[in-house]
Amino acid sequence: MINFEALFKISYGLYIVSSGTKDKGNGYIANTVFQITAEPPQFAISCNKNNLTTQFIQESGAFAVSILHKDTEPTIFGRFGFKSGKDINKLEGMSLTYGETGVPIVLNDCVAFMEFKLVQSVEVGTHIIFIGELLQADVVDNDKEPMTYAHYRQVRKGVAPKNAPTYIDKSKLAAKPPAPEHKKYKCTACGYIYDEAKEGKKFADLPADWVCAICGSEKDDFVEV
Amino acid sequence: MINFEALFKISYGLYIVSSGTKDKGNGYIANTVFQITAEPPQFAISCNKNNLTTQFIQESGAFAVSILHKDTEPTIFGRFGFKSGKDINKLEGMSLTYGETGVPIVLNDCVAFMEFKLVQSVEVGTHIIFIGELLQADVVDNDKEPMTYAHYRQVRKGVAPKNAPTYIDKSKLAAKPPAPEHKKYKCTACGYIYDEAKEGKKFADLPADWVCAICGSEKDDFVEV
Repeated sequence: MINFEALFKISYGLYIVSSGTKDKGNGYIANTVFQITAEPPQFAISCNKNNLTTQFIQESGAFAVSILHKDTEPTIFGRFGFKSGKDINKLEGMSLTYGETGVPIVLNDCVAFMEFKLVQSVEVGTHIIFIGELLQADVVDNDKEPMTYAHYRQVRKGVAPKNAPTYIDKSKLAAKPPAPEHKKYKCTACGYIYDEAKEGKKFADLPADWVCAICGSEKDDFVEV
Repeated sequence: MINFEALFKISYGLYIVSSGTKDKGNGYIANTVFQITAEPPQFAISCNKNNLTTQFIQESGAFAVSILHKDTEPTIFGRFGFKSGKDINKLEGMSLTYGETGVPIVLNDCVAFMEFKLVQSVEVGTHIIFIGELLQADVVDNDKEPMTYAHYRQVRKGVAPKNAPTYIDKSKLAAKPPAPEHKKYKCTACGYIYDEAKEGKKFADLPADWVCAICGSEKDDFVEV
């Protein structure tokens, strides 16, 4: 028996994984970044084969990880988590630095960053585990706390994009009885559900300049579900 | 430049990884457990080649992960994190269940557990990444919060065992000026440092039944450093 609620007890941070060159790069929101060995320091990330960043990592042989803090702007999740680099230039207008390998590193809302040289790739079904050796690392903002996936889910009410290793099809979770007086509205950009029952406020009563808590989309981008 | 302080900004949980059979098994404290793919649910762990549990995983082709909660007894860290299954039977006296594959699963102080069938092993220097397909998962205690590595380090003042992927040689961190009036005492079992300057209390003034916050060792097991 698999109780998918158990999987939510695993702790992760939230990161932007980026790759590419000075001319062309991309990044996406990841929660699966972890250290594999101490000597030398090597790390692994799990990257969906369909991600544009995957292609950049394979081409450049390098990647960077920016560690996001708790007060990260919702638009950062919208841009890097729920939009594709095939449609927009995600790095445009961002605060960037470039690593020793030339990879772009996003500095917005991050407490620290790390740069890696790709040393091994492991195919695992829909994803590739990229293993990188640490080239450089630094703290950007020591006063902010790193964002955790638990905080993102519980406090920020975030959801996982479909390409994420931790995406869970809602139909697999135990069904909860509906509350017929309250309606639910879904953000068409990121999938976030505004639940009137939980929020204690009707969607219609929200101010006109209200935006999606996850991706910053406007009220008009929501549909009743 | 590698600032090792940056690596402490990565978020992890704390887990007991176990393997073996009903007759003979072992487990160790891990912080590197993460999901790789959603369909099917596959997870990865990073395990030191010298760990006895590594041998059991290779022999049985299966492993389990117990997700520890915030109030986990210090002795659990002492037993599973700082002692070797080559010297003691770590599972003796523990609250155990056995998985579909027969692997022992530790239920002490855990919020949830998962059982995996080994599907791939990847050698990365000192460690092996074991990739497992999820066979079963369940929540044990929904009222407790999962322990995070940040909580373990900051609140519980825990340290990483030498075999851990996240072990950091203290000499690599920026040197801090010494406070000559205060002494430091080190736990010979787990390496935990009791720093009089931080604690605001002389080690000699601690009660006789005081024990190491990490592994539960007694006062006599500490040496001045």
